[in-house]
Amino acid sequence: MWFNGALRSKGRPIEPLNQLTATEIVAEIGQGRTTCEAVVRACLDRVAEREPQVHAWAYLDPEAAIAAARAFDNSGKRGPLAGVPFGVKDIVDTFDMPTEWGTPIHKGRQPERDAACVALSRKAGGVLLGKTVTTEFANLHPGPTRNPHDLTRTPAGSSSGSAAAVADFMVPIAIGTQTTGSTIRPASFCGVFGYRPTWGEHRMHGVMEASGSLDTLGILSRSVADIALYRDVLLGIPPEPMPSIARPHFALCRSHVWNEFEPVTRTLVEDAAHRLARVGARVTEFTLPAEFELLNDAHRTISSFEFARTFTFEIEHHWNEISDTLRGGRLQDGIVGRFDRYIEAKRLADECRRRLDALMGGIDVLLTPAAFGEAPVGMPAFAGVPLYQIWTTLHVPAVSIPVFKGPAGMPIGAQLIAKRHDDRKLFACAQWAFERLT
Amino acid sequence: MWFNGALRSKGRPIEPLNQLTATEIVAEIGQGRTTCEAVVRACLDRVAEREPQVHAWAYLDPEAAIAAARAFDNSGKRGPLAGVPFGVKDIVDTFDMPTEWGTPIHKGRQPERDAACVALSRKAGGVLLGKTVTTEFANLHPGPTRNPHDLTRTPAGSSSGSAAAVADFMVPIAIGTQTTGSTIRPASFCGVFGYRPTWGEHRMHGVMEASGSLDTLGILSRSVADIALYRDVLLGIPPEPMPSIARPHFALCRSHVWNEFEPVTRTLVEDAAHRLARVGARVTEFTLPAEFELLNDAHRTISSFEFARTFTFEIEHHWNEISDTLRGGRLQDGIVGRFDRYIEAKRLADECRRRLDALMGGIDVLLTPAAFGEAPVGMPAFAGVPLYQIWTTLHVPAVSIPVFKGPAGMPIGAQLIAKRHDDRKLFACAQWAFERLT
Repeated sequence: MWFNGALRSKGRPIEPLNQLTATEIVAEIGQGRTTCEAVVRACLDRVAEREPQVHAWAYLDPEAAIAAARAFDNSGKRGPLAGVPFGVKDIVDTFDMPTEWGTPIHKGRQPERDAACVALSRKAGGVLLGKTVTTEFANLHPGPTRNPHDLTRTPAGSSSGSAAAVADFMVPIAIGTQTTGSTIRPASFCGVFGYRPTWGEHRMHGVMEASGSLDTLGILSRSVADIALYRDVLLGIPPEPMPSIARPHFALCRSHVWNEFEPVTRTLVEDAAHRLARVGARVTEFTLPAEFELLNDAHRTISSFEFARTFTFEIEHHWNEISDTLRGGRLQDGIVGRFDRYIEAKRLADECRRRLDALMGGIDVLLTPAAFGEAPVGMPAFAGVPLYQIWTTLHVPAVSIPVFKGPAGMPIGAQLIAKRHDDRKLFACAQWAFERLT
Repeated sequence: MWFNGALRSKGRPIEPLNQLTATEIVAEIGQGRTTCEAVVRACLDRVAEREPQVHAWAYLDPEAAIAAARAFDNSGKRGPLAGVPFGVKDIVDTFDMPTEWGTPIHKGRQPERDAACVALSRKAGGVLLGKTVTTEFANLHPGPTRNPHDLTRTPAGSSSGSAAAVADFMVPIAIGTQTTGSTIRPASFCGVFGYRPTWGEHRMHGVMEASGSLDTLGILSRSVADIALYRDVLLGIPPEPMPSIARPHFALCRSHVWNEFEPVTRTLVEDAAHRLARVGARVTEFTLPAEFELLNDAHRTISSFEFARTFTFEIEHHWNEISDTLRGGRLQDGIVGRFDRYIEAKRLADECRRRLDALMGGIDVLLTPAAFGEAPVGMPAFAGVPLYQIWTTLHVPAVSIPVFKGPAGMPIGAQLIAKRHDDRKLFACAQWAFERLT
């Protein structure tokens, strides 16, 4: 585990406050042992200390954050996220902070309203701390964020700042998004929990669209309980208690790219499967049918076709302000993309989604790596094997849990994947596995 | 047919220019027989004459429109929509005009970029004439627009201004949207062609979300050829020639609400089926399985659940500025909506979509009414039977063709519906039917 174990003690008040989880903050504030202002000040202290190196934030106004925290404390407001500071990826609209999409093209862009997910967070009592760094248009070209575990390494993207800020104890929870692996990979590289929901459950209004057929929100956190809580908040429903499961059925899924993972990653995941079996889980193996490999291409076809059309305005007016990485990559792919192939890819994806439900049968969750290995040194625009495309295209929910350590001492996540709409079962299994693998 | 038949003559230059279709304008300008400025001036003359009664426009700056037309003429720009003025429903973002969503809450809201569909229209050479009136948040509470065929009657919503402006020869094509019947119904009431595409094909970025799982763009036009052309433009692909079909297979579908249609509507549609058979179509009957009726409730469950969450910001900050119609209707339904029922409705919809493909077999298109009858007198916030919900939830493409006249002399449309992604076959059948029913 990558966090301070002492935090889980019963001491009051728990310090440092910036290391609390969202669930803990709600309890501490609710029971009058601390205030939102104190929590926010602790987070801001951490930001002041570390941000010059980590660069997790695209926008953060400490005075405004303190004022918002004070306003919360004075309001007597309650709610499932009462007094919890949260970070929001800078492709998500906020009425009181700019939203620049990681591109100079939209520098200073100030939305007039909150995205649905931000409004729902605030309605639940959350206090927006600031906007976190995204890669350019949530694509590959990196922002300035560094991996807080090793500043010479990438945090991965595109939810770079959200993952780094949560990992570095600057904020307990943050909103990301995922179109390929933009939440799961940075969660793995930064050693935090990352959650990509079942596609289509959360409202995306006010979130920059990358590829509408694949985009979801993402949650970065330091506990599974926080993910379960925040998921319900973002669905706009009364949070249910953290789910549990007596004897989960895990299935090790090596996927089509197994041989491209780093050997240490393969060993860690196989070992985890053995350990889970030894402590009482049912553990089997699961192999995707060979034709599911076509979903890799389907993902590329769908995402690039949609991306290039979504950003027609930027292509027409700001072509020279777009990175070479994006122009020569997803945009070029999309601009020349053929509609018949796009529809064919969507039909294939639809068919595979249906088949997966039957194929998984009684399996609760699949177990597979959350990244090819540790975060590499440097800030590459792309890193690693095509691990996420199949799962993202299948619209299934996924969680990365920070349970492994690589040869350089950097975190690697285990990825757990459930059937569509089985998100809460996924949380139960993730918690079960996390408790037994750490 | 509701338009000036003389327009189809070979006379040059065709006058009045505001009565040309988009396809005709492209040809006329392309062959140097007229200019974009002349077309736009003709449209503006019509607007000047009729807008004080019709109220189709939420924003229109004649001088800016003329300047844009001149700029087009001077640019030598070509493209599939070269020189065609178009209107855009005022829930669709435009960088040079406000976008107010039909609510005082967002009065003066000025987006910093074009929605994908607007950028694609301009890229193809289209010249944005102005923003058309929408009902409040594209829901039921009406705007000021009147039916151009009878100013005492409603044009229907929510794409009220787009349908009225096209019907009244103020603009040849306009973008609408549809979440329930927001394109098909105003097309029927106003006597124009209306097209709702297969869900998910067009990028919705920059379009106000009502219910993301159901929303599509819509096209209002005065010819099927214009719909075929504009659909490809909005997909960002090179337009293919207007499709044709030798002997279409129509199936009369009375649907679950047949007995709630006005008797005249039932007679007109049944008569049309007979006429199509007499002139060579294969015509059969098609009955939806009884359980498809559940999609009516599923539509209400999905749309209200999503709508209430999408608009959390407005609910939290502007509750008193929302109409009673909306607060007591879709918002109230959605606020109390249960997540398990929402997911259950989505699963049912997914299953029915799959089944419909098989059920329709070799049928090319279904034939059903496009509205319960003529546009009623007055400006009701709601009118008519739940005709659209099942089809919209099935994600199928639909076209309303203006082929009937009711007892008051008002238009009624025939609605044709194809399988998902069979949009071009739908156009071929619509043209085939239109030519033989008028």
